[in-house]
Amino acid sequence: MELKNDLLLRAARGEKTERTPVWVMRQAGRILKEYREVRGRLSGFIELVQTPDLAAEVTIQPVDILGVDAAIIFSDILVIPEAMGLPYVMEEGTGPIFPKTIQSRADLDRLKVADEDSLGYVTEAIKVTKRELNGRVPLIGFAGAPWTIFCYMVEGKGSKTFSLARKMLYTHPDFAHTLLDKIADSTINYLKSQITAGADIVQVFDSWAGILPAVQYEQFSLKYISKIADAITEVPVIVFAKGAYASRKSIGKVNCNVVGLDWNMGIQESKALIGADKTLQGNLDPATLYADFNKIKLATRKMIDQFGKDKHIANLGHGVYPDIDPDKVKCFIDEVKEYSSRN
Amino acid sequence: MELKNDLLLRAARGEKTERTPVWVMRQAGRILKEYREVRGRLSGFIELVQTPDLAAEVTIQPVDILGVDAAIIFSDILVIPEAMGLPYVMEEGTGPIFPKTIQSRADLDRLKVADEDSLGYVTEAIKVTKRELNGRVPLIGFAGAPWTIFCYMVEGKGSKTFSLARKMLYTHPDFAHTLLDKIADSTINYLKSQITAGADIVQVFDSWAGILPAVQYEQFSLKYISKIADAITEVPVIVFAKGAYASRKSIGKVNCNVVGLDWNMGIQESKALIGADKTLQGNLDPATLYADFNKIKLATRKMIDQFGKDKHIANLGHGVYPDIDPDKVKCFIDEVKEYSSRN
Repeated sequence: MELKNDLLLRAARGEKTERTPVWVMRQAGRILKEYREVRGRLSGFIELVQTPDLAAEVTIQPVDILGVDAAIIFSDILVIPEAMGLPYVMEEGTGPIFPKTIQSRADLDRLKVADEDSLGYVTEAIKVTKRELNGRVPLIGFAGAPWTIFCYMVEGKGSKTFSLARKMLYTHPDFAHTLLDKIADSTINYLKSQITAGADIVQVFDSWAGILPAVQYEQFSLKYISKIADAITEVPVIVFAKGAYASRKSIGKVNCNVVGLDWNMGIQESKALIGADKTLQGNLDPATLYADFNKIKLATRKMIDQFGKDKHIANLGHGVYPDIDPDKVKCFIDEVKEYSSRN
Repeated sequence: MELKNDLLLRAARGEKTERTPVWVMRQAGRILKEYREVRGRLSGFIELVQTPDLAAEVTIQPVDILGVDAAIIFSDILVIPEAMGLPYVMEEGTGPIFPKTIQSRADLDRLKVADEDSLGYVTEAIKVTKRELNGRVPLIGFAGAPWTIFCYMVEGKGSKTFSLARKMLYTHPDFAHTLLDKIADSTINYLKSQITAGADIVQVFDSWAGILPAVQYEQFSLKYISKIADAITEVPVIVFAKGAYASRKSIGKVNCNVVGLDWNMGIQESKALIGADKTLQGNLDPATLYADFNKIKLATRKMIDQFGKDKHIANLGHGVYPDIDPDKVKCFIDEVKEYSSRN
């Protein structure tokens, strides 16, 4: 099926585009009343992730309502530990909790490498989404970076310091590498299954990139992101490492097409560090969307000017906050389209 | 009273020292069983902060037990909102909670500027500590940076995104500036009262520096840190802005003596950005202290080598984690002393 709007894919590959493509992290629902209506029919977030027809429905909502240039499959980075044999629950207001965590060699040995069939509900949701999108825009698949997944598997939940996960890097580095490699292999299989099902491009999210010093980040995170990026040859790869200020130069050497910037990463400085062969994605401060429409437009224009016309995918510098007015998100999206179309 | 060990003060002023001085953030208790024994006699953390004799006792413990080159008064950055009329409670396992927050102009008008007498329990603790230290080492006073205090006063508790506080910068910037200025004035009075009581040097902690883009960080945080640093002329000033990677150059222009680095800030790069006239403080990854003694020593030496002999105060890049073995902290401190004393 030929895509009617392939701006995102062309920009990702470094090709010239008529205007800057735009999408928003966490756009699949979260802010939309239409999402909450679907979500309200089910008992929980995980049930929605595991129900392909409904996951597809909320995936497509922002395409219809906000006019983004790509859909991103509604799912969760923690399906990978689940597929490896470590299930989680989602506590409202608290976030994900793993009743069991990985502490011992026995825990590690019990984990399996997720194969291409182990996340059938995601691949099914992708197939339904692709059918219903009917070529309107590309579909983004995604996974968490091994380091971020590792943090959850070791800590069992979010943390202010992730000191348990970081402790393991100092006390049992070989153990950490074995676990990270197992996660990376699972992630490669998982992303390949998403691509087979129809994902047109994939993003790797390293949410906890910012807690490691640069040397450890290379050893324990980028190494495995690189393994994934090297293995995914079918479609373009986006790497978004939030907070990895000190590692931007190294990220520029990863075999990926696009590097995502968070809202605190200076655009010119990041361009210089990452290098001209990558497309950059980002990076408006998500809190900008609390401002009035006029300020949002001005901030959006300033961002577009700084990135320049080519090799840029417009986005926020992190996921959209749940209490943002959808009309403000639409204002951002419309302004990217309008302003970047001018000669 | 003349100090027997004034290494920290001389290093802060940029003078040459026989060896590198060392202290540890959160050293006042937290990891020591002797601290927990004192803490166990009281109903809560805030009670300990407000009981001068016991606050002094736990302040001095790390000087006796760990051999640090400075004591830091046992207190909390949130005593400032308390003194301004916004009390907080400490929930075990959750952290500080403000039952009321600042949302409206009326809330703001109700706040007073804390005067020099409003935190008598802290100044009393400083006097007791100074008497009992008897000139062994300098005493560090401290306060939170206005931006970090602002976050707590608006959010009412910690947050993953601090989106409420950041929203205010976009929607009500004038309101935010008025509140920040009131906090800054309170902080100046508070630090001056600490100095009058005997603090030999003061540190301003900007724990949430890392969540603002550089332009906003200058406007809403550094402006007020600068106001404080300009007002404190009696003793040296340390500024520690955790996560402020993108603002190091601007921090170098603040009228302070010492700039603290977190563990993710590259040492050479930070030196170049901050400039040669500042003393730098930091920045071993606190998780390094989970490693074995030999690895801790090697990492400490590497850090000392990178900072060089002068204008450096050794420290961790953040507070010591509560589950760290005190012997490991002592290993770090001893190695700084021993290694930096060689030729």
